Amino acid sequence: MIPFNKPYLTGKETEYIERAVKTGKISGNGIFTQKCHAFFQERYGFNKCLLTTSCTDALEMAAILLDIQPGDEVIMPSYTFVSTANAFVLRGAEIVFCDSRKDHPGIDEDKIEELITPNTKAIVPVHYAGVACDMDKIMEIANRYNLFVVEDVAHAIDSYYTGKDGKKRALGSIGNLAAFSFHETKNIISGEGGMLVINAPQFENRAEIIWEKGTNRSAFWRGEVNKYEWVDIGSSFLPSEITAAFLFAQLENLEDIQRKRRKIWHQYYDNLKVWAERTETKLPYIPEYATNNAHIFYLVCKTIEQRTELISKLKENDIHAVFHYISLHKSPFYQNKHNHSRELTEADRYSDCLMRLPMYYELSDVDLKNICKIITG
Amino acid sequence: MIPFNKPYLTGKETEYIERAVKTGKISGNGIFTQKCHAFFQERYGFNKCLLTTSCTDALEMAAILLDIQPGDEVIMPSYTFVSTANAFVLRGAEIVFCDSRKDHPGIDEDKIEELITPNTKAIVPVHYAGVACDMDKIMEIANRYNLFVVEDVAHAIDSYYTGKDGKKRALGSIGNLAAFSFHETKNIISGEGGMLVINAPQFENRAEIIWEKGTNRSAFWRGEVNKYEWVDIGSSFLPSEITAAFLFAQLENLEDIQRKRRKIWHQYYDNLKVWAERTETKLPYIPEYATNNAHIFYLVCKTIEQRTELISKLKENDIHAVFHYISLHKSPFYQNKHNHSRELTEADRYSDCLMRLPMYYELSDVDLKNICKIITG
Repeated sequence: MIPFNKPYLTGKETEYIERAVKTGKISGNGIFTQKCHAFFQERYGFNKCLLTTSCTDALEMAAILLDIQPGDEVIMPSYTFVSTANAFVLRGAEIVFCDSRKDHPGIDEDKIEELITPNTKAIVPVHYAGVACDMDKIMEIANRYNLFVVEDVAHAIDSYYTGKDGKKRALGSIGNLAAFSFHETKNIISGEGGMLVINAPQFENRAEIIWEKGTNRSAFWRGEVNKYEWVDIGSSFLPSEITAAFLFAQLENLEDIQRKRRKIWHQYYDNLKVWAERTETKLPYIPEYATNNAHIFYLVCKTIEQRTELISKLKENDIHAVFHYISLHKSPFYQNKHNHSRELTEADRYSDCLMRLPMYYELSDVDLKNICKIITG
Repeated sequence: MIPFNKPYLTGKETEYIERAVKTGKISGNGIFTQKCHAFFQERYGFNKCLLTTSCTDALEMAAILLDIQPGDEVIMPSYTFVSTANAFVLRGAEIVFCDSRKDHPGIDEDKIEELITPNTKAIVPVHYAGVACDMDKIMEIANRYNLFVVEDVAHAIDSYYTGKDGKKRALGSIGNLAAFSFHETKNIISGEGGMLVINAPQFENRAEIIWEKGTNRSAFWRGEVNKYEWVDIGSSFLPSEITAAFLFAQLENLEDIQRKRRKIWHQYYDNLKVWAERTETKLPYIPEYATNNAHIFYLVCKTIEQRTELISKLKENDIHAVFHYISLHKSPFYQNKHNHSRELTEADRYSDCLMRLPMYYELSDVDLKNICKIITG
């Protein structure tokens, strides 16, 4: 059986977990958490990082930091994971779903402005498959209307955007805030896990407080106050040192993991190119301003029937390929809240027609060729 | 140096983590999560269990399940951790803080009824130090006024309450819901971690949905629906299999851990009894209806000055003893929301006078005797 995903151990994870236990501290915000923060800050130029128990939780921190109130509107793609929306709904926001691009499942940057109202508070672009949204366009709109931007970088570790100014910036470093995921299906994993990036300095202090259950515990550890107290709302957003130790072992091997994944991605691309053209199936599109972090290798079929058939054919050969999101504006939870005079045809098309192929570090050449042979055969 | 706490490895934790990785699934709700759920359900008679990333998150799940709305009132002790309150504040609740008992830091059961108004929705008793609140009294009030009861069992693993009917019930099995903690300072640990117990069957289905980010993913895995969708609010409350594997190794050693902690607790008690009587310092009180799970060994000094002096004396001898909660009704966040005509003198007294002694599996006889000698000397 070829699974859709297989978590990869770099070999140091359990050693680091044992080391964390030996330090006498395995609750959150210990040595390995600090190491992970430093890694991201140094490598990608993020202003301040805080590990979280999930990307969902990082998005929830963002919603609290932006002080989302009932009636505030947040614009995001409909073709995304439920947590992108739920995090803001939990604070009372109304979600205004935007369609996807024709050439890519990411938010259609040209359709954002028409959705802005006086109640709009934030835009949440999702860099689908780690491929950058056109951040120049999004930041320009946000600045003009005085909106916050929260990058959903769940897929987008180690990926970049090159703006009109020619500068290459890491995804997650551009918006006011950004939320990463280290869920087991991601490139770098800790089973469940995430991270909030705080690029806007005005959120730094409050972020630490919200992270530590609404207390000033971080200031207490630094000796800035002599007891720690309840000062704000918050939650237990920080993961254990067990999780952080596991994650750090992964981060140390980031280059190797990325090299391997990119190789697999390109093998898929090369093997499927001719077949895709012939069958009018779309392979992933990477705009010039974006890089490829090889998070997902997806196909966009012509019809849902074609996708169902292809997934079945692979399944018959013990290969597990899967579809992805179901448009949130048509979900049982949100369908009565969305204005359906606004059809989101591209989002619906990706819901129906997009499928993902097995993608993991240990996927062998033989298995990959076999997958491609079954698809094209 | 004798620390206040030292996390204990039973020896199987990293082996189980590696085993989880080998199953191909380290995100939440895998084999080890199921093993942990089964352990608790079988051993303590809990109806349904769901591991969470923290006790805070379990309390947040409880607040969502009770459908707490702005203006709803929740009664809880002021002498507790911020999360007991924050979880309900995040949903818009007003917290009505109750005083502690004279003989124990737990909620004064006889002062609850006078705090009930038409807006009261729930009572949240905290079994401080693992010592049961008088649950007959609390459940009788809750039933009479049609209120929910959420047990905060953060301290209370493996502890029991014997009611007037003579039945001995595990703490966490009595209220409609209950929230456990596996934070590194607890008896059974996973660094950060927690668990929601759902005793009231009406919450079972929705609890699973909220736990899985507001989706019907659990039903999907069981084959009850053919795709999983966004059906409710929710969050990523479930911990990774890394965390669950670590926790399960601890649970397998629960009896050994409890035996050792109880031994330490009783050594403290026996060594300090005469000194405590002489100095009018109070040692922990265990009512007849409660058991002792040896979670905390605390002293209640006569004055804050006496406590400061004792903590300093221990610190000079490289022994780390600590005070505990600061009354939440006097916290920076809540002091303007509490009605201060209602003084909570006992909660304030525990804030000022309670201290905790080092308490962990590997605390040696020699160290323990040394601690007691310094206190009494």
